[in-house]
This record gives sequence, C-alpha cells and structure tokens, in this order.
Amino acid sequence: MKRHLISAADLTRDDAVLILDTAEEMARVADRPIKKLPTLRGRTVVNLFFEDSTRTRISFEAAAKRLSADVINFSAKGSSVSKGESLKDTALTLEAMGADAVVIRHHASGAPYRLANSGWIDGAVVNAGDGTHEHPTQALLDAFTMRRRLVGRDAGIGQDLSGRRITIVGDVLHSRVARSNVHLLTTLGAEVTLVAPPTLVPVGVGSWPCEVSYDLDAVLPKSDAVMMLRVQRERMNAAFFPTEREYSRRYGLDGDRMAKMPEHAVVMHPGPMNRGMEITAEVADSDRCTAVEQVANGVSTRMAVLYLLLGGSEPAVTTSAATTNNARTEENK
Amino acid sequence: MKRHLISAADLTRDDAVLILDTAEEMARVADRPIKKLPTLRGRTVVNLFFEDSTRTRISFEAAAKRLSADVINFSAKGSSVSKGESLKDTALTLEAMGADAVVIRHHASGAPYRLANSGWIDGAVVNAGDGTHEHPTQALLDAFTMRRRLVGRDAGIGQDLSGRRITIVGDVLHSRVARSNVHLLTTLGAEVTLVAPPTLVPVGVGSWPCEVSYDLDAVLPKSDAVMMLRVQRERMNAAFFPTEREYSRRYGLDGDRMAKMPEHAVVMHPGPMNRGMEITAEVADSDRCTAVEQVANGVSTRMAVLYLLLGGSEPAVTTSAATTNNARTEENK
Amino acid sequence: MKRHLISAADLTRDDAVLILDTAEEMARVADRPIKKLPTLRGRTVVNLFFEDSTRTRISFEAAAKRLSADVINFSAKGSSVSKGESLKDTALTLEAMGADAVVIRHHASGAPYRLANSGWIDGAVVNAGDGTHEHPTQALLDAFTMRRRLVGRDAGIGQDLSGRRITIVGDVLHSRVARSNVHLLTTLGAEVTLVAPPTLVPVGVGSWPCEVSYDLDAVLPKSDAVMMLRVQRERMNAAFFPTEREYSRRYGLDGDRMAKMPEHAVVMHPGPMNRGMEITAEVADSDRCTAVEQVANGVSTRMAVLYLLLGGSEPAVTTSAATTNNARTEENK
Repeated sequence: MKRHLISAADLTRDDAVLILDTAEEMARVADRPIKKLPTLRGRTVVNLFFEDSTRTRISFEAAAKRLSADVINFSAKGSSVSKGESLKDTALTLEAMGADAVVIRHHASGAPYRLANSGWIDGAVVNAGDGTHEHPTQALLDAFTMRRRLVGRDAGIGQDLSGRRITIVGDVLHSRVARSNVHLLTTLGAEVTLVAPPTLVPVGVGSWPCEVSYDLDAVLPKSDAVMMLRVQRERMNAAFFPTEREYSRRYGLDGDRMAKMPEHAVVMHPGPMNRGMEITAEVADSDRCTAVEQVANGVSTRMAVLYLLLGGSEPAVTTSAATTNNARTEENK
Repeated sequence: MKRHLISAADLTRDDAVLILDTAEEMARVADRPIKKLPTLRGRTVVNLFFEDSTRTRISFEAAAKRLSADVINFSAKGSSVSKGESLKDTALTLEAMGADAVVIRHHASGAPYRLANSGWIDGAVVNAGDGTHEHPTQALLDAFTMRRRLVGRDAGIGQDLSGRRITIVGDVLHSRVARSNVHLLTTLGAEVTLVAPPTLVPVGVGSWPCEVSYDLDAVLPKSDAVMMLRVQRERMNAAFFPTEREYSRRYGLDGDRMAKMPEHAVVMHPGPMNRGMEITAEVADSDRCTAVEQVANGVSTRMAVLYLLLGGSEPAVTTSAATTNNARTEENK
Repeated sequence: MKRHLISAADLTRDDAVLILDTAEEMARVADRPIKKLPTLRGRTVVNLFFEDSTRTRISFEAAAKRLSADVINFSAKGSSVSKGESLKDTALTLEAMGADAVVIRHHASGAPYRLANSGWIDGAVVNAGDGTHEHPTQALLDAFTMRRRLVGRDAGIGQDLSGRRITIVGDVLHSRVARSNVHLLTTLGAEVTLVAPPTLVPVGVGSWPCEVSYDLDAVLPKSDAVMMLRVQRERMNAAFFPTEREYSRRYGLDGDRMAKMPEHAVVMHPGPMNRGMEITAEVADSDRCTAVEQVANGVSTRMAVLYLLLGGSEPAVTTSAATTNNARTEENK
C-alpha cells in the first residue's frame, strides 16, 4: 500500500481487500474488555479541517484514540491559515511538530494531493474529503458495509464485491462520495449504475466505468445495494432542478420503491439523512437501511487505514496470546 | 442506580448517598502520586454540547480523563446538527461510533430525556443542563459540598442531609440549578426555602416540596447553607424586576447579611459569580463561601457519576494493594 | 528555577541553559520507538487561550501529550469569560479543577503575571504570549535553535551563546517575540542588534541591552543569526510606514541580502512567514532558514519547560535502562 490515501482510484483490488480485512479485525476490538489497542501509542494524528465536518472529524478521532494515538484537532478557522498562511507553511509546521498522520478535509479539490506530493510532509496524508473530488474512507466504509451485508462477515474475508450490482442515486455532480465509490466499487469488481437528474450528472461521465440511468424504478429490481446521496439543499437551485417535491417524487426512496428491490438488497446513506427528501423515514428506519452500521463501520475502517499507513510500533493484536506478548513488549520499551 | 442521569428527581435517597460516597473516594485520587484511575480505559465519553458552557464541559472532560476514558468534544455549533440534522440522527451516530456515555447540554428542556428514552442509544446519558429544567450533577456536587461542610468528610460517609435547612436565593424561575437542588435536597432529608422576587418564582411552586419566602433577612438566621443563584442579566428586564441596584439591595448577599447566618452556615454559588450583584466581593472571598470547593467537588462528583453509570472494566481503586492488583489485571488484558 | 514562566527576563543564565539542555534530552524522545515519556501522567495541562493561536496551542498540546499529561483546551471565546467572568474567577475555577499547569495566551500585556502572582492558583503558569509584552517559550526555542546551529547539538550542552551576534529585524514595537529575545539572548551572552523602521522602534529602547540600527545591509555581515519578525499587516498603516513595497525593499530579506551574511549565519523566523514581504520565498526555502526547525524545537523546548515546572512524578528518561526502571515504577503505582 502507498504511504498516503488520497483517492480511491489509487487503490488496487488487493490494497482495498487488505483494508477491508484489517477493518474486520479492528471491528473486533469493540468486543474486548478494554476497547483499545496500543499499536499507535506515541504517534500523533492531526485532524486538519479547513471545512467543518463534525461527523468525519469525530470518526477519525475515535479511530485514532482506539489505537492509542494522540489526536490534535486543528480547525483552520480563526487560525493563521485563515490569515493567509499557505498550505505549504501549515504542512511544514505540522511536519515539524511531529505529526505522523495528517487527516485533511478541504473545500478545494486536490488539496490533499498537493499536501501528499509536495515533499512538505513525511507523515501519512489521509484525504477526509476534498471539494467535489474524493472521500476515499467513505467509499471504503461503504464497501466494508456492503461486503458484510452481501457476502458475510466471516465469509467476506479476502473477498471483493465481484458481480454485485450497486446503484448510486442523487446529486452525483457534486458528490465526492459518489466519485470515490465509483472508483472503489469498480476496482472491487462490482457493477455500478448512477441514477441522477440529467442536470446533476457530471459532463465527463461517459468515461467513468459505470452505467447511467434516469429511471430509478427500472434499476431498483436489479440492485444489490442502493446508495442514496444526501441532497445538499444549498446546491439545489432552479438551474439544476425544479422543486424539492419534484426531486423527492422522482429520485427519493420510499417504501413502495424499496419494495421493488430484491429481498436481500440494502439501502445505504452516508448521512446525515434528509428524511422526507431523498429518503422517507420509513426507509431510513427499516432494517434494510445500513446508515447507522455505516457510521460504526467508519470507525473500524479508519482504524484500519491509520493502522496500515502508520504501521504501528507493535503488531495489531487480535488473539489474547498476542495481546499478552504485546503488553510485554510495550513494557520493555 | 438507573442507566442514565436525567433528573435529580429520579434519584432515591440511597442512589444519591451512593454517588456522594463514591465521590468521596474519587476525591482521594487527587492525593495519589498519579492522579488517575484506569477504570474507564477504552471507554469513550462524548460531550455533546448544543449550548456553550466551558466550565461544565471542562469539568466533565477532567472527570472522564482522570478515569482514563477517551473524551470527544462535539460542539453542535457549525456541525450538521445546526444544518438541521435531527437529535435522533445525532444520537444514532454517536451510538454507532461507540460512545459509552453521552454528556448532553441542550437549550431545550427535555432533550436529555428524549435522548435517554428513545432507544436510540445504548450508552449512558448524563444531563449536563437542559433549558430551565434540570442540572442534576450540579445538585449532586452542591449536596456533596454541603455534606462535607455540615456533616464532615469522613463523618458524612453513608449520611444524608436530614434536618439541614437550605435557602436558595434568586431567579428561581429560570434556574435549572434551583430545580435540581430542590428535588435532591428534599430526597436527602433537607428542608429547603426559596427566596426570590415574586416575579421570579415559578407558577407551580406550590406543589414543590419546599417553602417560599420573600424576606431574605428573616430566613438567614435559620439557614445552614445559603445558595445564591447567578443573576442572568440577559433575563433581568423590567418585566421581572426594576433595577440591578434594587435587586442587589433586596436579594444580594453582603457582609452584613452574612453576619446574620449561624456561625457554622456556608454560602454557596454555582459560579460564575457576578461580584457586586447577587454577592459582594467580601462574601465571595470569605472562608464561608464554598464556590471554589464546589468546582473541585464537581470533578469528583462527575467522576462518581461516570464511574457508577459506566461500571468500569475494573474496580475503582482506593487502596494501594488494590492498585497493584489492578495494574496487573490491566497488563493481562 | 521559579514555579512559573512569565518573562524571559526572569531567567538566569543557568536557568536558561538548564532549559536548553533539558530540551535536547526531550528532542531525543522523538527517536524512541514510542515517542512518549510517562513523566507527566495524571497531570493536567490547561491551554487557556483568550486569543486564537493555533500554532502555539498545538505546540503546547503536542508537548504535554508527549509527556503523557492530560490536556484540556479552554478557548475563552464564547465562554463565561467572554460574558464578563473575571480572570480571578477563571483562575480559581481551573485551580479547583486540578490544573497542574495553565498555559495562558492573552491579548493584555501582564495577564500571565497577574495569574501567577495573585495567589489564585497553585499550579504553574506559563506565558504563551501576552499583548505586546513577552513570549518567553518562543525566545527559548529560538535560543535552542541558535545554539544547535551555531555551537552544535552535542557541543552545545551546558553552553550559552556568548559572543554570538544576533540581529532582529522588523516591527520591534509590537513584537513580544523581539522583547523576549532581547532579554534572553543578552542573558545568554549574545550581542543583539535591532533593525527597524524608526517608527517601529519602542520609545524606551535606549534602556534595552542592545544596539539599534536603521541600516540592515550594514549589519548583515556582522550577524551570526538574523531573525526576521513577522509583519503584522493589520498594524502596518500609513502612520508607521509608507507602503508594503517600501518596507520590503528596505527591511525584507532576499537572496542578495542573505549573500552578505557570513557563511555560517542562519536566518530565523517565528512563523507564519509572509513570503514576499519580510522574507522572499528563496530565502524562506533555503537551508539557512531555520523556520521549520524552530517549530520542531518549539515542541522540545515546551516539553522541557513543562517538565521542569511540573517536576513530573517520575524522572525524565533518556537511557533504555532508565526506561525499563521507569516502566516498572509506573506499574507499581
């Protein structure tokens, strides 16, 4: 695996499967008496957020702390960054302070790439969402959730998503979640269909490795998972789409539509959900909706990513024998 | 004890005494060479604050960290919550991320109750102040402070406040501190008198288990503790009371008034104090004023609450023998 | 050493050399497999920031965490402090909560002094910048950086900066960094020259233990280190100086000017740099510019300051034998 995680497109099938398998190991930590691994003790993870995103920040923070890393939250608001400090100087500062990983959220597409490829920083860079570009850990946690639900928790180990049919519905144009998912799901062997209003399909979608449809009802019966994107109301203007009601009628998921899906199929949502907009409360609260699992899986997946990128000073521990050895090793250090 | 702490009214006398006794044990941690217990290692406490309250947030944060829990601060400002995410979705998110306890501060009375009784969350919910409703840990730390001062540190163990006469003075109408204290103090056997301007007495006070008086000077000689409420200037308008000076003259505590109290009686204040308003600097800085002790006791009391609600993965440790055993247990996990 | 660090002027030569020597030990922690010392476990460091300064806050936070202290960030914005709570009540609150050290940043010169000398607080007070007064840890990290570069990492142990010629350039009038550096560098035996526009030289500079010059080019060849101060654009108005371009032409450091410095001389900057203003990108990115090292050294220096002020519950550990003993001690506590 590379030293950074910038784009889902950078991951090979084997990289991705390794992350998912490691995430399954990490998920078991929650079952231990002390829900914590000592693997990243003494390492520092900086959450560098140029954009508010409490949910994503908290998920990375929980993941890092469960691995015993120290976490420093750096909100760019009100900092010298907002007084015009360059990304370069911020990067050099974090590097100099000993950041082992920088988790970056930025409103500008490409900022994490610049950070990782500039030579400014030795630590690992993890893209936590950049502009309308990518959000690779979201795609990984989505894939993790699908593998668990469609293939199985134990049966899924070592497996990808070959032959699964995934439908992504909504404002694809502005969605980094959609973009990252298309890359990753394709790499994992899935067949992806995008369903969106014509005005919310990216211009270059013809070159994406997926199908495009404008008819949600036609696609549902052939879907193993249907991923509803969050409608970002601030981007919903007349130029893109007539009214919220009209959007909801054509692209929202309600109980009737869900009934058209195969019995085993799941409904996904990255959250936070606009109940009554892209998804009805009935669907959101049904057993088939994985939105809450996705959040839990997000912590495990981000633990896996941080663990694999930072290597840890100790082996990841999953058996009790290993745990004891590990504790001993730690003492002697 | 219940799984949540929402209202002081939910506590039985035995619950309350158990919390106060546990808080006394927790207070001893500060005397140890390493002022920390390993009991909540691997547990995650989320401070979910919909309203700024640095003092309360810091107190819970210090309490949780002294028990070795991981703490995640979630300020609802600027988060998706402020973009319209429902309390339900926030709750499900925190639950999915593995929050073992959610400490919630909310401007709406009843929000913690909804959080605890919705089935959204498995973890413990602790009310850190909701609207004008309740602030149960404040009442507990106040009771702890009174028991120490009026009964004694060691002598107080296992005891309640039977027969003690407590006077609460000020804007009772808007005070969650007053409300929680009336409940808890009564449960602990104390006799409570409220003193307030007529416009700042709640309408239904007739059904409260306490006396009401409009004459502070008459009540002082019969008080074992006098609790001055903070005047919230933003709520002090002409409709409620003529002027600050008039308020101070009739309901403020100065040296002359304090002299009317029995010698053993104490002056309490939840802080932050408006010196010169509800309390003069002379009183605030006298030995009889427990405001600073209350802050210290707040950390011990909140440690006790978190410890009792979360159970800990290890026994609370107070003897050095137990400490050693505890350290050993920890290693082998 | 005193119990607080308020002003660089309070440090004797031996105090300062002890801090620099300790900082060298702390710098070695970064080379250990687990980059962390257990020395301040169970201690609480509060970052009390009345002014935003993400860089300084993060540096102290990283330093404290690397020593295993618990860190609580207290931004005064939006807290009861901004609702008019006095510094005294804030101090008493932090003291009562068990703060072992309070790192204070304040817009008012003298606030840290009041905090330390009021008797409000038992813990150590560290000035992290007050108004235009002092920023002693910045001066210490600057001195540390100079000693390493000009005397040597190992050769520097126990040494001061006797006979070194340091030039400080820019808005001295508003710079707490300049003020602290003049005090500390003089104490360490260096010869300091200030270069500034006449309007940006403090009135009482005649009593400072340093030279003043208005001719940068004349001073450069006689400088072992040239410290460029950050131009604070908000203070750059016509009253002080005509234009940015004019400032840059006369007091900025570019490649041509740097070439006039002796070969061994270094360029320093406290950051964040205004590239193109007081320093060109060419100089900022050259090997002679220590800006990034200064950031790294800041963490080591602040670790040393916290360690020396708080004493630690265990010896600072630098050899592996000591580490093992230390780990054992920790277990038995």
